[in-house]
Amino acid sequence: MTDAITHTLAEFAATLDIADVSADAHHATVRTLTNGIALAVGAAHHPSVELTLGVQRQLGSQPTLALIGREERLGVFGAPLVNGMAIHVEDYDDTHLRTVVHPAAPILPAVLGAAQLAGASGADAMSGLLAGVEVALRVANGICPEHFDLGWHLTGTAGHIGAAAAASRVLGLDADQTVVALALGATQAAGLTAANGTMTKGFHPGKAAADGLEAALLAQAGLTGPARPIEGRRGFAPVASPKVDLDEMVDALGTRWEMQDNAIKPYACGIVSHAAIDAAIALRERVSPDEIDHLEARIAKVVLEVMGIEDPRDGLQSKFSVHHCVTVGLLDGDGAPPQFSDARAVAPDVVALRGRVRAVIDPDVPKGAVWLCARTTDGREIIEEVRHATASAERPMTDEQLERKVQGLTVPVLGEHGAVDLWRRCAGLGADEDVEALLAATRPV
Amino acid sequence: MTDAITHTLAEFAATLDIADVSADAHHATVRTLTNGIALAVGAAHHPSVELTLGVQRQLGSQPTLALIGREERLGVFGAPLVNGMAIHVEDYDDTHLRTVVHPAAPILPAVLGAAQLAGASGADAMSGLLAGVEVALRVANGICPEHFDLGWHLTGTAGHIGAAAAASRVLGLDADQTVVALALGATQAAGLTAANGTMTKGFHPGKAAADGLEAALLAQAGLTGPARPIEGRRGFAPVASPKVDLDEMVDALGTRWEMQDNAIKPYACGIVSHAAIDAAIALRERVSPDEIDHLEARIAKVVLEVMGIEDPRDGLQSKFSVHHCVTVGLLDGDGAPPQFSDARAVAPDVVALRGRVRAVIDPDVPKGAVWLCARTTDGREIIEEVRHATASAERPMTDEQLERKVQGLTVPVLGEHGAVDLWRRCAGLGADEDVEALLAATRPV
Repeated sequence: MTDAITHTLAEFAATLDIADVSADAHHATVRTLTNGIALAVGAAHHPSVELTLGVQRQLGSQPTLALIGREERLGVFGAPLVNGMAIHVEDYDDTHLRTVVHPAAPILPAVLGAAQLAGASGADAMSGLLAGVEVALRVANGICPEHFDLGWHLTGTAGHIGAAAAASRVLGLDADQTVVALALGATQAAGLTAANGTMTKGFHPGKAAADGLEAALLAQAGLTGPARPIEGRRGFAPVASPKVDLDEMVDALGTRWEMQDNAIKPYACGIVSHAAIDAAIALRERVSPDEIDHLEARIAKVVLEVMGIEDPRDGLQSKFSVHHCVTVGLLDGDGAPPQFSDARAVAPDVVALRGRVRAVIDPDVPKGAVWLCARTTDGREIIEEVRHATASAERPMTDEQLERKVQGLTVPVLGEHGAVDLWRRCAGLGADEDVEALLAATRPV
Repeated sequence: MTDAITHTLAEFAATLDIADVSADAHHATVRTLTNGIALAVGAAHHPSVELTLGVQRQLGSQPTLALIGREERLGVFGAPLVNGMAIHVEDYDDTHLRTVVHPAAPILPAVLGAAQLAGASGADAMSGLLAGVEVALRVANGICPEHFDLGWHLTGTAGHIGAAAAASRVLGLDADQTVVALALGATQAAGLTAANGTMTKGFHPGKAAADGLEAALLAQAGLTGPARPIEGRRGFAPVASPKVDLDEMVDALGTRWEMQDNAIKPYACGIVSHAAIDAAIALRERVSPDEIDHLEARIAKVVLEVMGIEDPRDGLQSKFSVHHCVTVGLLDGDGAPPQFSDARAVAPDVVALRGRVRAVIDPDVPKGAVWLCARTTDGREIIEEVRHATASAERPMTDEQLERKVQGLTVPVLGEHGAVDLWRRCAGLGADEDVEALLAATRPV
């Protein structure tokens, strides 16, 4: 089996039908869809999005495909780019816990684009979303953590391959055509974590979505590519990862669903510091910021590697600062997008407290945990320990928590009624809901 | 200096003026331009090009930018993609001998696109072409051969970065904006040599050109990116290569010109088997194909690694077969595009002789050489040894050879007069020739 990984994944994607999967897998797909759509509604006018949209407009992009949460339309390269950026830009989307892939941002916009071009049903769109996410996460499983450790941003790399798989399924490509689409995705798979904390990070999934849709369209038209672009000699996996486990890419494919391990994020920053925010919010009940002399956060090495910006200068940088996470958790009792705005990143109360946060690597603290201690000016030590953060495998976001998050993003834009309507349409997409109607429901009246 | 590689390259690109460079560097730039333009004229209706153009047309690409050699226009993503594919699709373009980058295909279309958008002068276009090629080849020098050995197609990877640099120069970006464009190029740098022998290979430089132009436009609009995307932590070079030599990227920058080492290809296949074609053409004078029992080609290991397809089934595959190269050299006395057509790949006389070619790795034969022996049915051994192939550093294509190659590509399309006119306009682009007029001269009347 492992000598035809790409073909196995292509066959899987080409034949996946959302109607045949388990209720749990279906439900996980609805959650990922709903969360992704809500994020793009919430960030539809984010500065990164406005800037990218402005360039597209200036270039005369054709008004072919819908933008989530906006009246404008853009061309087949522009719309997935802008939608993918909008889903990811707040770092508030979703995370496959094992590989740190954020799958909705690169894959959902490719699904929506393909569905509009093909006039596909909502069920086909859901099938494509699940197929694309599974393919991306399976490929990621086979090369992680080594591929990530090198410095690749998996949402860009595996995202390209997943977006190509998703668009192929929605366009109705057969397995052989899907192999070519996966080849075009794999040969464009890129994205550097050097971009963390800049607008370029959000560009990665947007471009993966656009490239994935283009890959499927070119494959459909008859472009040729290598037969084993993922696993073969000089294929993506051996080229971009020092270690490859091909079995991980196909074992129990279509039986065990990686989609069910796609965590919905409660906070708008890297998931490795969610425990720190949980702990800071808990600490807030027990100590007031002006009593604190300094804070010490004992964390795993990876947290500091990913979230090590001590003195962020803008909102995007603050998403990569565990110091900032602890600070806003304590001051604001939350870690939503407002806590990571440009203004909040440099607010005097934040800067003052953040300068008193020390982050210390402790080999005894596991990746998803934190040991947080506030030392007060009068010599007390108040400790909060979080072993499993919100959205960890042990404490996943409940449907009620997801609904509150989605309302927080959509009610300010669509109103109470519109938000409820959108939630309902997302839940029904696998059944009789229409893609165009869903997209229309994302636009403010 | 090596702690700010990206900034150094950006500053270099932003300030390069073709009027200030040596006559040799200028002349090498004209050669690369002329060869690239002629190739796209010759391949403007190649099946890969027609297919990709068809998808663009179907998607409603805006008629913004010119296609080389065609009346149609496409949008800012479509035109560079199609032009880059047209330059590279015959594997007949150019090769930086040290790194095997084919620089014109990813970089020249980005230059032409940016020049049309900005209404830039021919001199600015030439400055951009030289800047982009230098940046691509410098980055490549710093990571080769290790990056290539991993399986990366440098025309796609370094090509992305070079295209971004070139478009930045033509659009008039300053050094800081150019750093962002280089970041967007570096974070999209991709392309797998698994694609060799398929249409996906030609897609690589086309997409690099399109992405490079987009990178410069987004940087111009204000997108933010990492400050050291090439050399920094989790930047392109350390992520995509096990070995990095940063000095190679900047030493004698603007004094020593890599453009002068960009070889114009005499044959439409991988440059590592050019010696085999030279030897076969020489052998042709001394033995007739029907006298031959079998042929033995002693070659360097890399030749068989890159050109090891023993029984190619179409034209694209035949470009990666040293067996085919020897065969057409002997039968046809040439290695131009007709020798690598779909028809020639499976022609009975070719198949019959090709099956009698044995390629043997010989550690004593250097990379650019070949030892070719024909054993006749009556027991004779006729040997041709080529130590330096045509287009090697020792035997570069002369201006006269380039002119014959360009005429071979352009006269059938443009006629004698049109071909001469195009040659003249290419030579004058650094002086008073206009970009739009040059492009108009590529179109058949």
